[in-house]
Amino acid sequence: MRFTSETSSDGVTEQLFTLDGLPGALWTPDGATGTRPLVLMGHGGGQHKRAPDVLARARRFVTACGYAVAAVDVPGHGDRPKDERYDRLATRNRARVAAGKERAPLVARFQALVARQTVPEWRTVLDALQELDLVGPGPVGYWGVSLGCGLGVPFVAAEPRVRAAVLGLGGALGRAGAAARITVPVEFLVQWDDERVPRGHGLALFDALGSTDKTLHANPGAHGEVPPFELDSAVRFFERHLGRG
Amino acid sequence: MRFTSETSSDGVTEQLFTLDGLPGALWTPDGATGTRPLVLMGHGGGQHKRAPDVLARARRFVTACGYAVAAVDVPGHGDRPKDERYDRLATRNRARVAAGKERAPLVARFQALVARQTVPEWRTVLDALQELDLVGPGPVGYWGVSLGCGLGVPFVAAEPRVRAAVLGLGGALGRAGAAARITVPVEFLVQWDDERVPRGHGLALFDALGSTDKTLHANPGAHGEVPPFELDSAVRFFERHLGRG
Repeated sequence: MRFTSETSSDGVTEQLFTLDGLPGALWTPDGATGTRPLVLMGHGGGQHKRAPDVLARARRFVTACGYAVAAVDVPGHGDRPKDERYDRLATRNRARVAAGKERAPLVARFQALVARQTVPEWRTVLDALQELDLVGPGPVGYWGVSLGCGLGVPFVAAEPRVRAAVLGLGGALGRAGAAARITVPVEFLVQWDDERVPRGHGLALFDALGSTDKTLHANPGAHGEVPPFELDSAVRFFERHLGRG
Repeated sequence: MRFTSETSSDGVTEQLFTLDGLPGALWTPDGATGTRPLVLMGHGGGQHKRAPDVLARARRFVTACGYAVAAVDVPGHGDRPKDERYDRLATRNRARVAAGKERAPLVARFQALVARQTVPEWRTVLDALQELDLVGPGPVGYWGVSLGCGLGVPFVAAEPRVRAAVLGLGGALGRAGAAARITVPVEFLVQWDDERVPRGHGLALFDALGSTDKTLHANPGAHGEVPPFELDSAVRFFERHLGRG
């Protein structure tokens, strides 16, 4: 893990890093030392590790909870090179949707393919972050919706260090098996009028989660219109399950 | 409105009252004077105005938010006389369910009948409470699940003074019309494995609410197993919409 920059604003230190060519960002309270909970964030499709809403969420978790927060670019996003294999598949899928094919199964298969790469990548990142003095072997949370849910479900299912997760804006197609293997507390977001994820698919993914402690929050509005009070709720959810930094 | 007793414990004053023969309870912060938000609570079936969970919730809203909280006995419950008409109907419904009839439509019709009595009763109680110096014409909230939802939906729909409501554990049958007339913010509770309210009926009632600001919280478990953190959430929901006392 090689740090390439360090900046600070309003009490939050941001360090950019690369790990085996993987670009990432780590946010921590200014002057932090010692073990603290870590929240990994998966960004949405077309976004990247420092997209405005990722940054806002990271700042909030750092300042409200004293956590370390990290995000890495998904293949083909942010500072990562274009990946021709994914590009070809995405182009083909867009053509299929334009020709009238149902979108959800295509997205599910695409994200399952990408997850085969990101699950081991994120586990390696987690290994390296927990070696840092200002992170350490504390409890780990995961936050990811939409693409961050599609990649997050298999990650949380595979990674026993993750002790609580906020997921959502994703459906059960192709993910029910991994979801059933998740047993940690989950706060799950559904947008009631989601134009990308059919309502029933989102409810089915919540239903498929193996966790006994899971809570569904559904709000009116489109895919991108999760209300701001859900970030307040995520803060309290993580504090309940990871404690404070 | 005639007050019949006043007691105080741990900072909360409880006054029992009767109004036109209707028995009720009012909880306020010790020594309260002046206008403050008021939360009316509808109790569950077979419960009453001072059932343990009603009391616990009332204490919490008073101590956390500085609110006034009030509850009255539903006809045939608590300190009210038995009502032969309701008793006969309840007995007949139990026999019908035992004979294999679907429970939900019978409950819906029964609660619609009771609501014809409770909606005007609760409005009269609200009139009288707002005359009190320590309540006054502040914003009003409503909290009620199960029977408290069945009676609460028509009440909230009819009463413009109610500015926010926590509802849930009830279905859409016979209530979709009233639900559509509700336009204030609603936090709506669904128990994912509710043995009394089919999941689809609860989701349909949330869907039917006319409010643009509504949020669904669903949790695993049976009808009576709403997790304790939902009371924390209700506190924040009311603070967001009614302010603090």
